[in-house]
Amino acid sequence: MKITEYISPLRENIEKARELGKTIILIPTMGYLHSGHLSMIGVARADDEDHEKYYIVMSIFVNPIQFGPNEDYEKYPRNMINDIKLAEEAGVDIVFAPEVEEMYPDGQNLTTVKVSGITEDLCGASRPVHFEGVTTVVAKLFNIVRPDVAYFGQKDYQQFMVIKQMARDLNIPVKLIAVPTIREKDGLALSSRNLYLSETERKQAPELYQALQEGKKIILGGEKNVEKIKEIITHRIQKKTNAKIEYLEIRRAENLAPLGTINNTVVIAVAARFGKTRLIDNILVEV
Amino acid sequence: MKITEYISPLRENIEKARELGKTIILIPTMGYLHSGHLSMIGVARADDEDHEKYYIVMSIFVNPIQFGPNEDYEKYPRNMINDIKLAEEAGVDIVFAPEVEEMYPDGQNLTTVKVSGITEDLCGASRPVHFEGVTTVVAKLFNIVRPDVAYFGQKDYQQFMVIKQMARDLNIPVKLIAVPTIREKDGLALSSRNLYLSETERKQAPELYQALQEGKKIILGGEKNVEKIKEIITHRIQKKTNAKIEYLEIRRAENLAPLGTINNTVVIAVAARFGKTRLIDNILVEV
Repeated sequence: MKITEYISPLRENIEKARELGKTIILIPTMGYLHSGHLSMIGVARADDEDHEKYYIVMSIFVNPIQFGPNEDYEKYPRNMINDIKLAEEAGVDIVFAPEVEEMYPDGQNLTTVKVSGITEDLCGASRPVHFEGVTTVVAKLFNIVRPDVAYFGQKDYQQFMVIKQMARDLNIPVKLIAVPTIREKDGLALSSRNLYLSETERKQAPELYQALQEGKKIILGGEKNVEKIKEIITHRIQKKTNAKIEYLEIRRAENLAPLGTINNTVVIAVAARFGKTRLIDNILVEV
Repeated sequence: MKITEYISPLRENIEKARELGKTIILIPTMGYLHSGHLSMIGVARADDEDHEKYYIVMSIFVNPIQFGPNEDYEKYPRNMINDIKLAEEAGVDIVFAPEVEEMYPDGQNLTTVKVSGITEDLCGASRPVHFEGVTTVVAKLFNIVRPDVAYFGQKDYQQFMVIKQMARDLNIPVKLIAVPTIREKDGLALSSRNLYLSETERKQAPELYQALQEGKKIILGGEKNVEKIKEIITHRIQKKTNAKIEYLEIRRAENLAPLGTINNTVVIAVAARFGKTRLIDNILVEV
């Protein structure tokens, strides 16, 4: 496995792989890899253990511009040495781990890519600069790597939908794949931010997923009234945890549009604060 | 020469040319071709009359989102049949002339690419949505065509600088070339909008260039005070025409930064209204 901090050698290595006819796969991450990331590599590497068909590029970059001024950019966990070990074991071909200066030379970031319409609510409501930071850095990574395929975690469902919208609108020729969320045994969605949880918070956190599961059961049981389902889920989280719910929404899975009656595949999405730690989760319910 | 309205066959043709090892050149236009456009094709086609080295893609698209609500989108001149004839004679390989629906399906344009810092003044002051519309459509064209090289007219100097900034910031791997402005014998910069001028306005319009030339002479003569030079040029335009000057600025050519004293290569840029017709022009002065 190769490792580089710089765009130019990264591109050279990718071009060599492309000339060999390999499919270029990008997995963008902020590092501090856990089984969720490794699962993405696993899916990407499937039936190509000999590295003959796919060239997997994993970027590791804690992107400053997607963090708000009061968010956890500075304290976001980092562990490059361990990340490199895990990436190599999982089958990555090259790790791109740039410094901020390589991505934003001279601290300059005059150009932004912004998606409207699906970034203003859900996570966007409490994180107003977040998605603009995400789409800008992902557009840059797409231009640097020119991947044929890119993988994202389904845990960040809104993020995935926003990136899909951006790729479609800007005619970026990349196939986007969402990889199912990996969970602890008790159901908690893996996230680098789980590290921040106190012991009590950690014990309560799986309730988010249990509540989403209950919502799913109710929907599959035939309940169609969105407000009613939301109330039941919300009530359950409030009863079983001390978390402050930021949002609990049921939306059309296809485009995140609000709906009053369940009449199609939906996503139930939640964000909640356990103390200072903000966790998100979601599940799809096919109807 | 091939002609297509659709992205998919365009890409297929480009990929064939790329596989033959040809350099892909993009010339984005809004059509109604004049000698300024043809000069760009000529520069691009230079020393490759046999179409062996370069594959020249010319897009013809009057991009609605770069026009403000009170601007001339509807009446912007169009002449596709003549454009196709001229493009073929000049040596274009493929014309991409999409309908609005092909570029913005379902009228949707949720994603915008925006450059800050150099879009707010000069032309941006009177055309607040203009550059965002330009950078968005050019980003799309870059993703559709994936050119190795793209040509733009120097007449739209600010536009060229904005696109350069975008390409740098978003890591778009394209070489950008500004082609010198082509002029009528009397000095008027070629523009599709010259068509709008009345006979009197047409007679006065070359004064813009004459005034810029006088500014250049003064600078080369050693004058360093920017305000003083601006006053002389402005006064001359006001004396010799009925035009309403929108701006007359002297900026660092490199980055359009304002300056008080001439100490480097500068661009003298002007925008003025002759009746309802807005004309722009500029010249570079190497110091």
